[in-house]
Amino acid sequence: MAKSKYEYVKHFEQDDRLLPGCWLVVRLDGRGFHRFSSLHGFTKPNDLRALQLANRCAETVMKDVQDAILAYGESDEYSFVLDRKTRLFGRRESKITTTVCSLFSAAYVLYWPEFFPETPLQYPPSFDARAVCYPTSRILRDYLSWRQADCHINNLYNTCFWTLVQQGGMPEKEAEETLRGTFSADKNELLFSRFGINYAHLPAIFRKGTTLVWEEVEIPVTTPSGESALRRKKAVRALDVDIIGDQFWHDRPWLLGEDTPLPPAGTEDAKSDTPL
Amino acid sequence: MAKSKYEYVKHFEQDDRLLPGCWLVVRLDGRGFHRFSSLHGFTKPNDLRALQLANRCAETVMKDVQDAILAYGESDEYSFVLDRKTRLFGRRESKITTTVCSLFSAAYVLYWPEFFPETPLQYPPSFDARAVCYPTSRILRDYLSWRQADCHINNLYNTCFWTLVQQGGMPEKEAEETLRGTFSADKNELLFSRFGINYAHLPAIFRKGTTLVWEEVEIPVTTPSGESALRRKKAVRALDVDIIGDQFWHDRPWLLGEDTPLPPAGTEDAKSDTPL
Amino acid sequence: MAKSKYEYVKHFEQDDRLLPGCWLVVRLDGRGFHRFSSLHGFTKPNDLRALQLANRCAETVMKDVQDAILAYGESDEYSFVLDRKTRLFGRRESKITTTVCSLFSAAYVLYWPEFFPETPLQYPPSFDARAVCYPTSRILRDYLSWRQADCHINNLYNTCFWTLVQQGGMPEKEAEETLRGTFSADKNELLFSRFGINYAHLPAIFRKGTTLVWEEVEIPVTTPSGESALRRKKAVRALDVDIIGDQFWHDRPWLLGEDTPLPPAGTEDAKSDTPL
Amino acid sequence: MAKSKYEYVKHFEQDDRLLPGCWLVVRLDGRGFHRFSSLHGFTKPNDLRALQLANRCAETVMKDVQDAILAYGESDEYSFVLDRKTRLFGRRESKITTTVCSLFSAAYVLYWPEFFPETPLQYPPSFDARAVCYPTSRILRDYLSWRQADCHINNLYNTCFWTLVQQGGMPEKEAEETLRGTFSADKNELLFSRFGINYAHLPAIFRKGTTLVWEEVEIPVTTPSGESALRRKKAVRALDVDIIGDQFWHDRPWLLGEDTPLPPAGTEDAKSDTPL
Repeated sequence: MAKSKYEYVKHFEQDDRLLPGCWLVVRLDGRGFHRFSSLHGFTKPNDLRALQLANRCAETVMKDVQDAILAYGESDEYSFVLDRKTRLFGRRESKITTTVCSLFSAAYVLYWPEFFPETPLQYPPSFDARAVCYPTSRILRDYLSWRQADCHINNLYNTCFWTLVQQGGMPEKEAEETLRGTFSADKNELLFSRFGINYAHLPAIFRKGTTLVWEEVEIPVTTPSGESALRRKKAVRALDVDIIGDQFWHDRPWLLGEDTPLPPAGTEDAKSDTPL
Repeated sequence: MAKSKYEYVKHFEQDDRLLPGCWLVVRLDGRGFHRFSSLHGFTKPNDLRALQLANRCAETVMKDVQDAILAYGESDEYSFVLDRKTRLFGRRESKITTTVCSLFSAAYVLYWPEFFPETPLQYPPSFDARAVCYPTSRILRDYLSWRQADCHINNLYNTCFWTLVQQGGMPEKEAEETLRGTFSADKNELLFSRFGINYAHLPAIFRKGTTLVWEEVEIPVTTPSGESALRRKKAVRALDVDIIGDQFWHDRPWLLGEDTPLPPAGTEDAKSDTPL
Repeated sequence: MAKSKYEYVKHFEQDDRLLPGCWLVVRLDGRGFHRFSSLHGFTKPNDLRALQLANRCAETVMKDVQDAILAYGESDEYSFVLDRKTRLFGRRESKITTTVCSLFSAAYVLYWPEFFPETPLQYPPSFDARAVCYPTSRILRDYLSWRQADCHINNLYNTCFWTLVQQGGMPEKEAEETLRGTFSADKNELLFSRFGINYAHLPAIFRKGTTLVWEEVEIPVTTPSGESALRRKKAVRALDVDIIGDQFWHDRPWLLGEDTPLPPAGTEDAKSDTPL
Repeated sequence: MAKSKYEYVKHFEQDDRLLPGCWLVVRLDGRGFHRFSSLHGFTKPNDLRALQLANRCAETVMKDVQDAILAYGESDEYSFVLDRKTRLFGRRESKITTTVCSLFSAAYVLYWPEFFPETPLQYPPSFDARAVCYPTSRILRDYLSWRQADCHINNLYNTCFWTLVQQGGMPEKEAEETLRGTFSADKNELLFSRFGINYAHLPAIFRKGTTLVWEEVEIPVTTPSGESALRRKKAVRALDVDIIGDQFWHDRPWLLGEDTPLPPAGTEDAKSDTPL
């Protein structure tokens, strides 16, 4: 039973360390979530329970995986930003992506009953994940802006679509045709004029997604001598704010570790790298 | 909310397609399972419930992920072999590893109560995974032999260790010292002479691990006209047999698609690739 | 002048070792050779001097770079096959490709005057190179067949084109139009009926390219005692033969180290890996 | 002669595009230059002809390969910096490294007689090359500082060694022992006290290496109307200056395109990525 005779097969494992000095983003996407959400009765266009469950899973990842400085989630996807100096798993791509994805998936099933107490899971939901390196803070911010813009665009569309269907009694096909080729202004107008809905007043979590950050909080404690006091502690906080503009970053300079202003958004455009 | 201004960030995603024509192995490992198994009261040296749970999860993966032709599990690890011609996710490494790992992890939590009905999960267990390319069937078989030899070596050691502790009343430190430097023959002898245990008679699932393969089974059905009949169906079957020798492969020539004999084990040694 | 303060930059070098157990092919292509060949007065459609110069350079590579078992050249390209077990430079891709390419380029300039004694080089010619891994002998042979079929197709076309222009006095544009959409049979017929040229009788080096292999040769030597004798020595030999069919490989079983017949050409088709 | 049957082998070529947004450095090293320089009678410790030949080759590369903004050479190595936005060959690593290396090698042989008119080349010299991505300007500068510090350290050592041997008549072995464990100050002192050599007065090209940059120059021309005039033109200029300090970069802000001060040298240390 000579193990050593076979150990040469280890040499076929290839080194997959991600470039040092870059921000690492791990993005998870639900696999087959169209079917999964139908089968488990998710509310359309947004199911608050499902969003909160995803946030709970992301918080688990933030607390377990060192150097996750921020996470951003919308719909059935979540992006985790690891510090550019992270030494997590020696920056090995497979270790990082699979661990994050595994933890999120296991938490999704474990915490499911807390958010869907009436709905038993019919099969194990799954996610895929990828890692991307971003060399500068400007490009990292553009990545997050891309996801938040995506959240907005999809949510505005879905809100119109499902309002037409649910409140307007329109068949799905017709709703689709109604919306084809419309701009944001048209969609806002449609919601307001036909249904009295002011899109800007819808819950921010639907319009902005969720951003998780580490923040110091004060926890009331009782000292040994019996007095009330406050203890400072790091905790994960969920925000439903704009992260495209500068304000969010300006208020949290420790996130990117930059003390000089960044160039304007989109200026580090890599379109030169588009395949020819 | 111009999404297009930010879309250039997609170009930072790098192509990670695995070499065509190679067997793909995805190996999962439990993360921090030493602590996890203690906390959840796993029986030592082997917990049959945990092994059967892992087998259940692996079956889920086999049925969900196309082109998984075989899986081999032992302890808290599982290897999945994808056909050398698989086009799963365009052979993109991240998609493959994270999907397999996610599905296994979600299944582990979902099916946990079936195998540990008395033991609530205290936190989400997680796994990591990696993919490795093996260019020839000989090297693939050597990979699987490496894992089964590993199973044997670890199990023999663990069986001795826990027998000394549990039945011999020996402190763990002393059991460790007793076994240091011993060979397989010594360990077999120790089990037999001191505890009357014939290692070869222990359950094969502990000694050989579990091999999952697709097999045709006959299912009894009742025909529309009310008669009993047998229907043939593909099903995943769990085996606890030797996969190092030729017999297993000889009996299933469709697995490797080889009709010519392979060179002897260990002959495709790549030790030349050892880092200098 | 503390060097160590800066040495961390070495960690940005990424591991690029090629998968063990695979055949490695390094293919060089002339860069801008259309212009280069015009400027240096290459004969059209084939310049024997240029082909012989390339063969001389390839021989230099074969003799300098260990484990090059075969090379195949046509037009301004050359492919080098390294043994699947090669440990050259620890199989690091950059080291292998740049060394082969550098050596070939330097040799091209150094030996240029031997083949073009009347034509001074006007600027340094350059080549690019890439490495590709081929997991099986069948796929490696299909690679070489691909290049030799390419040689044939291009040479037949070019022979027709330049015969129409040079012997037929046809403007280049018209020659191009004449050949558009024609099949091999048409081109053979055109050469024969209009110019009395039997394509099959043209020099094999033009039709088949050049294959370099190691062969044992006998060298006449004089022994210390003054007698004539033959000494066996390995030498690079240039062949202009068919390498698509089985005969070439059957006659040299040591090249691929296979003693069992290979599956038919094209059967290890990886078209499943075509990008979606 | 169906080429298409074989074309599937192209799918085995793997995508090797370098991460967008990063500075690219291509570093060439002479292969076996210890032997090469001995055989071709290079002066020790520095051969000015060889350095100037290398500079001539690097200039060829700068002029031929787009987006090379700077090059730094010392001894038998040369580093080329490509702009972080370069789209050269779609940023494909193999194309970039082999083209640069091929061009340099061909130029080395072609221009050899200009610098070594009395010394025929005995065999084709060769180089290898690698590409490295640097995500920030600070790290790029640290890379260049690393090379220039290396130049200084090696040159000081070699100057001492060869002075002891050539002027001091010391056997090489003894010179080596004399220098073992000495610091820079010791070596400066040795040169000055024993041989009257002030190291700082040696030619800067030996102590600092050569930095090539693009600069605008004014060329005297004669206008069509016969008057003398100056025309501005971009040209490659060779400098033998310090590039570790800020002055060089401060004077040429266009090189890095930075208008904000960089963090201090060595601060983006990636030592966290050291293999465990």
